[in-house]
Amino acid sequence: MKNVAVFGAGRIGRIHASNAAALPGVSLRFICDPVADSAGQLAGALGAQVSTPDAVFADRSIDAVVIGSPTDTHSDLIHRAAAAGKHIFCEKPVDLSVPRAEACAQTVAAAGVACMIGFQRRFDPTFNEAKQRLSRGDVGAAEMLVVTSRDPGAPPAEYLKASGGIFRDMLIHDFDVFRWILCVDDGDEAATLYSTGSVLTDPAIAQVGDVDSTAVTIRTRKGRLAQINTSRRAAYGYDQRFEVLGSKGMLQCGNHKPHEVLQSDGTGVHGEKPEHFFLQRYRDAYRLELAHFFETLQSGGRFRTTIEDGVAAQKLADAAAQSLATGVVVHL
Amino acid sequence: MKNVAVFGAGRIGRIHASNAAALPGVSLRFICDPVADSAGQLAGALGAQVSTPDAVFADRSIDAVVIGSPTDTHSDLIHRAAAAGKHIFCEKPVDLSVPRAEACAQTVAAAGVACMIGFQRRFDPTFNEAKQRLSRGDVGAAEMLVVTSRDPGAPPAEYLKASGGIFRDMLIHDFDVFRWILCVDDGDEAATLYSTGSVLTDPAIAQVGDVDSTAVTIRTRKGRLAQINTSRRAAYGYDQRFEVLGSKGMLQCGNHKPHEVLQSDGTGVHGEKPEHFFLQRYRDAYRLELAHFFETLQSGGRFRTTIEDGVAAQKLADAAAQSLATGVVVHL
Amino acid sequence: MKNVAVFGAGRIGRIHASNAAALPGVSLRFICDPVADSAGQLAGALGAQVSTPDAVFADRSIDAVVIGSPTDTHSDLIHRAAAAGKHIFCEKPVDLSVPRAEACAQTVAAAGVACMIGFQRRFDPTFNEAKQRLSRGDVGAAEMLVVTSRDPGAPPAEYLKASGGIFRDMLIHDFDVFRWILCVDDGDEAATLYSTGSVLTDPAIAQVGDVDSTAVTIRTRKGRLAQINTSRRAAYGYDQRFEVLGSKGMLQCGNHKPHEVLQSDGTGVHGEKPEHFFLQRYRDAYRLELAHFFETLQSGGRFRTTIEDGVAAQKLADAAAQSLATGVVVHL
Amino acid sequence: MKNVAVFGAGRIGRIHASNAAALPGVSLRFICDPVADSAGQLAGALGAQVSTPDAVFADRSIDAVVIGSPTDTHSDLIHRAAAAGKHIFCEKPVDLSVPRAEACAQTVAAAGVACMIGFQRRFDPTFNEAKQRLSRGDVGAAEMLVVTSRDPGAPPAEYLKASGGIFRDMLIHDFDVFRWILCVDDGDEAATLYSTGSVLTDPAIAQVGDVDSTAVTIRTRKGRLAQINTSRRAAYGYDQRFEVLGSKGMLQCGNHKPHEVLQSDGTGVHGEKPEHFFLQRYRDAYRLELAHFFETLQSGGRFRTTIEDGVAAQKLADAAAQSLATGVVVHL
Repeated sequence: MKNVAVFGAGRIGRIHASNAAALPGVSLRFICDPVADSAGQLAGALGAQVSTPDAVFADRSIDAVVIGSPTDTHSDLIHRAAAAGKHIFCEKPVDLSVPRAEACAQTVAAAGVACMIGFQRRFDPTFNEAKQRLSRGDVGAAEMLVVTSRDPGAPPAEYLKASGGIFRDMLIHDFDVFRWILCVDDGDEAATLYSTGSVLTDPAIAQVGDVDSTAVTIRTRKGRLAQINTSRRAAYGYDQRFEVLGSKGMLQCGNHKPHEVLQSDGTGVHGEKPEHFFLQRYRDAYRLELAHFFETLQSGGRFRTTIEDGVAAQKLADAAAQSLATGVVVHL
Repeated sequence: MKNVAVFGAGRIGRIHASNAAALPGVSLRFICDPVADSAGQLAGALGAQVSTPDAVFADRSIDAVVIGSPTDTHSDLIHRAAAAGKHIFCEKPVDLSVPRAEACAQTVAAAGVACMIGFQRRFDPTFNEAKQRLSRGDVGAAEMLVVTSRDPGAPPAEYLKASGGIFRDMLIHDFDVFRWILCVDDGDEAATLYSTGSVLTDPAIAQVGDVDSTAVTIRTRKGRLAQINTSRRAAYGYDQRFEVLGSKGMLQCGNHKPHEVLQSDGTGVHGEKPEHFFLQRYRDAYRLELAHFFETLQSGGRFRTTIEDGVAAQKLADAAAQSLATGVVVHL
Repeated sequence: MKNVAVFGAGRIGRIHASNAAALPGVSLRFICDPVADSAGQLAGALGAQVSTPDAVFADRSIDAVVIGSPTDTHSDLIHRAAAAGKHIFCEKPVDLSVPRAEACAQTVAAAGVACMIGFQRRFDPTFNEAKQRLSRGDVGAAEMLVVTSRDPGAPPAEYLKASGGIFRDMLIHDFDVFRWILCVDDGDEAATLYSTGSVLTDPAIAQVGDVDSTAVTIRTRKGRLAQINTSRRAAYGYDQRFEVLGSKGMLQCGNHKPHEVLQSDGTGVHGEKPEHFFLQRYRDAYRLELAHFFETLQSGGRFRTTIEDGVAAQKLADAAAQSLATGVVVHL
Repeated sequence: MKNVAVFGAGRIGRIHASNAAALPGVSLRFICDPVADSAGQLAGALGAQVSTPDAVFADRSIDAVVIGSPTDTHSDLIHRAAAAGKHIFCEKPVDLSVPRAEACAQTVAAAGVACMIGFQRRFDPTFNEAKQRLSRGDVGAAEMLVVTSRDPGAPPAEYLKASGGIFRDMLIHDFDVFRWILCVDDGDEAATLYSTGSVLTDPAIAQVGDVDSTAVTIRTRKGRLAQINTSRRAAYGYDQRFEVLGSKGMLQCGNHKPHEVLQSDGTGVHGEKPEHFFLQRYRDAYRLELAHFFETLQSGGRFRTTIEDGVAAQKLADAAAQSLATGVVVHL
């Protein structure tokens, strides 16, 4: 039985806490959140106790912590958890600063604790099936990747101001998908990256110095090509697809729909929109990634997403921001 | 070079005449229609001459006739064409009366001329692909057939009055599909037939003694099962599908669409309706069946749809009408 | 808080027990099963106690029972539960005998307890969406229903022998779908029913006096038409679809797939098979129906599937068996 | 009646000649090709005469010429046709050299003859439907375009050597699609273009100095974004899709299939591959573009694809070649 504490009782903290509570072999012990009400409600609903980071790190019975608190608290909590010998599951990103993220990775390695970063897309049933087929060689060697990643609507400008920009906040997931699909199992990495972008949906986004529409192209050392297109607004909902061209075929990952009703009438044949947003689309993925974390802790195997993956995606986000700012291709 | 005359310059006559005119090795010589204007216009557009049945049957240079005139003229023209030694392509049905249709078949056999009946669905690219896969055993032995056959809207009550009823006018095609898919290459035939129906779209249809919605079930001698559902009205257009369950899988024939645009917006993901009606959906099929007729005349091979097929479908239509009228299962 | 006991620790009992245990406001107290090991394991995993029907019915703290034990125990447990004043959720069917099922319904009504029958398809997200659209009039008035219902493979002949036959064992769900879609909210009911069937997949099925392939046609009092086609074997898995033609359009309920990967290669474009069998396809439906049961107990509202629905579906199954045996249309 | 001569009796010349011959109001008079046999066969099959450019340009009865001869003959024939006062339909590209193409455009303008360039994709039923919906505002204002354009296999290295490279030979169509969808009706044009590419399918392609896989990103003056991904090899056939994200939705243009059979079996649900290659996929488009040419000649309206469009696409191809060669973003 692994004893666990969760940091953060907001949207993502609640998901991880519920998933942890439902896992066999896992005992959810503590919830920590500066907002006492949130912590209390969540703890109460799941049979856990409210606590503080200090108490959690001092409690020798705690095996692992799940970090679902705001981004700017991640690196501090990682350092403290590593120092206390706790295993770590941390929401993406490690930190908005690559040097600080790298420092976390070093601390974790030195402490010998596990540290998995929450790139939940690697656990999505559709994306994961595509990855497995690619690994089996079902469509031959991967040559090109096209990622479409669009949100149903932009968050408030206030949020965007502190987000680190669209590449660090939103495309960080797409950069990880790129590395997962084209690089990590092929000994490959990005060689050059070009990005461009625009504000097309809301001038308020320009006022906080960000863009809402981007087009990124990455060429790997082995010459494989990836294109990522993103928008903060898709009128039809959360659009999360990618396709891989291989030497023997293509894999396409389509959107998930809430039901399979098709309506035909005088105006056409109508299917449902994709599932609304990430909480719906990645419901299974969030559950499966936490299960993987605890199973892998138990089995001693290899984690599917490491803190090094977190740092690597962050570097691509930095490169993309630099390319957009300067208008030139970045060599990595 | 085969010299050909076409009877009928209406909707279906024009299609066959145009297709004949475009075939290599075929010379469209004459168009016959009591409506002089129609005949003249069609002949003019296709480089043919206007003529009369008498003149056509007396003309020794004519090899074949295409009968696309009204149903009640079919049997007379077949008898006369057979007597004159002309090969015959005749639109379905042979005749609304089974005994008269059988007499046509006897005359044709005695005269030794070819007589192909225009069951164009057997030449539709989708349906024909399914048939070929079935014949190759791609889904094992056929067990069940489900046919969906719906028109975009009912013809005028005037037309219905003379149509012979929905089974002879509309389901005749579906009965031929049933025989083509489950029977003709398997030494099987219908053993029992049950049909029911209703007037659900327009009371005027009841007034002419017909129904607009039917459900037919056929069991073959070998125990295979077929269900046919039809309606005179589908708000979304011409719905022409069938699916076959085999011992190793299923084949589904979907509708054809005029284009492949998919539109996603705030209300869903929208595809186009099926092609509007039979002239659009079976455009290729009409062309291919006539090409088959002349190629088979040339090669001396086996026609895909014979006058015997025409008679057999007619018998099923009669059985369906009888089952609907009496409310009991018909044994064939 | 509702205190609950579950009868049956087999496949379906385990599903209901797990779902009950996860519901807020529900306390799973007891598991009863003659197989002590099964009862013990299930109770242990869910924090409940092993008990017996006698003890459960005598325990005044128990509010409701969930009956997931073998079919031949249902009616006895219903009578005893009603006598003890417990609310009842009972798996389909009520009983293989219509008179015994009707007696259950009378007892339940007299006792004034709730009794919901587990027709879980009414809670399937896809089927339920179609029903809601139909109720809203999105495709106008319903005219025809076509149900396709195929299992991936037949159960052992031993099971079939005691199953009551394919109509009572398998099509009972499809008969309920027919009533739900075409009848219950329209003041309509079946007027005539015709069924035929064959043994096409395995001669052992004939030896126990059953069939594996059926075709059923129902005409309602209002003249609406329904066709149901079923097979005990579909090589491609669990095929659960229906489509409704309405005066203004059509609703089609497609199968659910485990993921949305589409693979294109030299042989075609390949999607995944449907979810394997009922435990996968109806996972959400089983959860939602039990939630509905307890919510409705709480709210005092109307249950979506009553014991009267269970009796009505049973009568259609009897009629289908009679039609198959006699070869004639049954008038209801 | 317009009298027409066709230059070129190869693959594309044959298509245009057949389409011209079938058009009402058009008389196909002459076929010119240095390969006498090809010219003779084509002329014979279509009821035309063999001729020479000299004779055609001297023949005052000829109204228009269709240029389907090799690329390096285009500019000379355009100059001579313009000088002779003949209207011109010319296959893409105008010329591999932008200055020579511009000279053609000037000559044509000075002569006051019509000159339409054969960008047949603008006439494809699917692409054209998307364009019309976009123009109507069905999905709001266009923001992003993603083009996927893949051939089933590379042509021989010999062909590639003289092709001008993948951008001028293959992507020229995609550049025209970009301009058609995002620019021509919005007063917009490309502002920056970045391209990268690799040899991933066949080292022989590297030996002739070309690439087989490319990723192009274009940003317009108004900030709209386009990404084009191309490969000379797709194991599943000819892949021709694009999707446009608009402020109110998305339009996706899917591939065309030869039939609509869906096969389900133990390994999945299988659809057919896309139509094999451009001659199949764009059969209708080739027919419709020539019809448009002659109708517009007749009506005096605006041609959908002008020689200026040809020059503009050529400039984008040059920019892409430059970006690939230098590794930097090109400003237009």
